[in-house]
Amino acid sequence: MPKIQFWYEFASNYSYLSAMRIEALAGDHGVDVAWKPFLLGPIFAAQGWNTSPFNIYPAKGRHMIRDMERTCADRGLTFRLPEPFPQNSLKAARLAVIGADEGWAPAFTRALFALAFGEGASLDDAVLAQALAIAGQDAEAMMLRARNADIKARLKQQNEQAQALGIFGAPSFITESGELFWGDDRLEQALAWSLR
Amino acid sequence: MPKIQFWYEFASNYSYLSAMRIEALAGDHGVDVAWKPFLLGPIFAAQGWNTSPFNIYPAKGRHMIRDMERTCADRGLTFRLPEPFPQNSLKAARLAVIGADEGWAPAFTRALFALAFGEGASLDDAVLAQALAIAGQDAEAMMLRARNADIKARLKQQNEQAQALGIFGAPSFITESGELFWGDDRLEQALAWSLR
Repeated sequence: MPKIQFWYEFASNYSYLSAMRIEALAGDHGVDVAWKPFLLGPIFAAQGWNTSPFNIYPAKGRHMIRDMERTCADRGLTFRLPEPFPQNSLKAARLAVIGADEGWAPAFTRALFALAFGEGASLDDAVLAQALAIAGQDAEAMMLRARNADIKARLKQQNEQAQALGIFGAPSFITESGELFWGDDRLEQALAWSLR
Repeated sequence: MPKIQFWYEFASNYSYLSAMRIEALAGDHGVDVAWKPFLLGPIFAAQGWNTSPFNIYPAKGRHMIRDMERTCADRGLTFRLPEPFPQNSLKAARLAVIGADEGWAPAFTRALFALAFGEGASLDDAVLAQALAIAGQDAEAMMLRARNADIKARLKQQNEQAQALGIFGAPSFITESGELFWGDDRLEQALAWSLR
């Protein structure tokens, strides 16, 4: 079964759109998904940005809000931007790195995105614990484990890999043949490409 | 018949994608198109950019090229980026402003985009004349006319209107109810919205 890499960032609203549909859509195509949480912060910093481009360019930010409202309504999703935006997603990404190894990243990721962008929740410890519980995990134990040096190193390595792959935004999709697709709009095209 | 405004820039590769399909697609939806050429330069300058973001952010630029190659192949279009990129589109936009008044903007716009992004042609006088001829116009007379002060003023006014409408990139689509959609990816959604 062909495999597609799904690179996503918990602070990214467009990653929310893809996270909520990728597994079902990839399943329809007969494509397997590798969940790749990462942090956009270091990549944006390398581009000279210290926050989201939606904050740096207000007209773009206003359009993003309206675009999300329209697209979420079309897809039967709720939408509320967490404040402040973007949230600090470091702990969430470390947890998802563990989840990707152990198979519960999809459930955890969907639960956390639904809280963060469906309800506007902050990525604080209580919300992370709630998402872990929804994914069937022992929240307290997992949050302790996410502080381990090996998990921190794993996420750092994953970020370096993202940058080396030419990823500059989220969500991004990479096929086995190495094609990079950026943006939720390109998910269908990326899946079709995976089958070539 | 509902009307949608199509805001486009001759130096913008994603405007090429929309220009080649909007009339047929809008026709299928029963929507009329108002062709609105404008210049991104002043809008980018207001955002602190002195060139295309695809030049400022090289990883984004590399993805754009590949994305255009893939999407044009899917749509049966050729693709070649004119050099240097972006081209100076001032004269082209002035001509299209006349064409929008007189009804030949669609034919001229498609002809010029096909030359510029289908074949990589520069937006120089010979190429503008070729596109005018394809659109059935007297090229020499029209290029003289485009130098008139009233045409220059009309384009300037149109640029100011774009900025006042919150347009920050191209292509953009605006429905009669005032909804702004950015990007060729949003054309279908914008047309569906026009029918609400």
